[in-house]
Amino acid sequence: MKTIKIGLLGLGNIGTGTYKVLEMNRKQIESATNANVVIEKILEKDVTRDRGISIDPAKFTQNPDDILKNPEIDIVIELLGGKEPATTFMLEAMKNKKHVVTANKSAIAASYDKIKQCADENNVLFKFEASVGGGIPILNAVTSALQGNEFQEVMGIVNGTTNYMLTQMTDNGLAYDDVLKIAQEKGFAEADPTDDVEGIDAANKLTVLMILMFGKYVKPENIPTEGISKITKEQISEAKAQGNKIKLIANAKNHNGKFEYSVKPMVLKNDHPLCGVNNEFNAVFVTGNAVGDLMFYGRGAGALPTGSAVIGDVIEIVRKINK
Amino acid sequence: MKTIKIGLLGLGNIGTGTYKVLEMNRKQIESATNANVVIEKILEKDVTRDRGISIDPAKFTQNPDDILKNPEIDIVIELLGGKEPATTFMLEAMKNKKHVVTANKSAIAASYDKIKQCADENNVLFKFEASVGGGIPILNAVTSALQGNEFQEVMGIVNGTTNYMLTQMTDNGLAYDDVLKIAQEKGFAEADPTDDVEGIDAANKLTVLMILMFGKYVKPENIPTEGISKITKEQISEAKAQGNKIKLIANAKNHNGKFEYSVKPMVLKNDHPLCGVNNEFNAVFVTGNAVGDLMFYGRGAGALPTGSAVIGDVIEIVRKINK
Repeated sequence: MKTIKIGLLGLGNIGTGTYKVLEMNRKQIESATNANVVIEKILEKDVTRDRGISIDPAKFTQNPDDILKNPEIDIVIELLGGKEPATTFMLEAMKNKKHVVTANKSAIAASYDKIKQCADENNVLFKFEASVGGGIPILNAVTSALQGNEFQEVMGIVNGTTNYMLTQMTDNGLAYDDVLKIAQEKGFAEADPTDDVEGIDAANKLTVLMILMFGKYVKPENIPTEGISKITKEQISEAKAQGNKIKLIANAKNHNGKFEYSVKPMVLKNDHPLCGVNNEFNAVFVTGNAVGDLMFYGRGAGALPTGSAVIGDVIEIVRKINK
Repeated sequence: MKTIKIGLLGLGNIGTGTYKVLEMNRKQIESATNANVVIEKILEKDVTRDRGISIDPAKFTQNPDDILKNPEIDIVIELLGGKEPATTFMLEAMKNKKHVVTANKSAIAASYDKIKQCADENNVLFKFEASVGGGIPILNAVTSALQGNEFQEVMGIVNGTTNYMLTQMTDNGLAYDDVLKIAQEKGFAEADPTDDVEGIDAANKLTVLMILMFGKYVKPENIPTEGISKITKEQISEAKAQGNKIKLIANAKNHNGKFEYSVKPMVLKNDHPLCGVNNEFNAVFVTGNAVGDLMFYGRGAGALPTGSAVIGDVIEIVRKINK
């Protein structure tokens, strides 16, 4: 059995989840790939934090070149987040003929063409299932099983923080400020929640979805984006009284090659499948001209679900290496 | 650009849908595969029926060997339905080094091992996304993006006829017999509805799901199966009064390699994601040890959705042929 060596950039929440998924499901992964997949090196400063996993300290490095230029390493998993140095590292890895897996929606949304071109030039694979919808295998679906469709529309609840907050406002009649505090206490919202509550994270994800579904690249800053910070208790209860719910929706429509797109709070009727998507769950509703309406529902964040998506990409790459 | 030639066995409802998807989305399919995919020959007796498509009469044949032994043909799509002669034809096609795509759950459920072994021996691909959940790409998901998981459970609403009937009983307070008549009039139920209403169709699909998710083969006739024909108006309204719904669920659980499975009506709480799956829609709810709960929702039947799944399989095969 072949051994495939991974270099991991970043051992934060998702990095740890990825490591755990690889350990706990080693048998499944071996049988799916007919390979022994090992994490060879980890770029991470914090060597001592208790992550609930035991890692040989020799695997840690603080020098990116120990991974990016390491001839032993086949696949680089980038989980640093943020545009830089993540993008530079991914390009460097590709130039050194390493396949790249990432969960980094902001880097992809900012530089997709550049990264994809670099992957193609170096004949390596570039995969990023975890960048949209966490564990939900939506990118895989639209780029494989559903490719016999022309996609007409996508509507996504792709930000768990805001969906949690809107659900709590709806179910418990709470005001925005109060619910933000609760979300921060529970770790569902960050100390500076701007990216989530103003729809910026959702816009990044919509950029990624539009690239893959419509072959259309729109910079996230060019997507008309409105968050949830101005939603009032009154708007929520008015919607509720009419049998509706307010959801933050990343939406793009394809009118025969003319595209309309936005991230904004939308009032959905209670019988819309996206209305049943509550709290931290995500869902992506897509319409194809053959398949009709489809919805993919699951955990849009969290260490293990997101790790599941990262490892799914790794498995696909290993299978291709093996052939 | 390479030309890939298809032999189509059967031009009924799904065959016609498959033909239409290939025609209407020719551009997408060409760009996804970098190939020109053409239907070369069609095994079908009824040459004159108006299907809303125009087909060169020279493509029709009534001799299976014109497809199965035709050296020009790369991929055989089997859409005859039923166990025989479908299974014999699929095996014959494989022995002649043709890849096989099918939507035939009863043939797979009865003879999966034999067909898969034949495919492996002849180094051809065998794909059957359309056999479970129509257009919903559930089989692709569990065999690719989600393979980093150990699956713990699957709960599926995988029969559109019974889901339509239960929805109508719930929403309109109708009795089973009345709703069956309506379903038959609308074409959602067959004249002899036994396979659907007694859960046999769902059991076939559960067999397929268990093979792919758990690597476990259970003959459909060995799955404890109870249909909906004994469900009364009273049971439905009692469930409704308690905030629940009755759904026909194909369920399998993996208790560390010990399996529990059934097809039966189950009472689900209204906040369960499967409760929002109404009328002819299907959904499959899966639980993986890394990804947690996921649900895939969409049209479980119909010419174009099912054709979308068939063509998705064809695209995957063509991509592999091209490499």
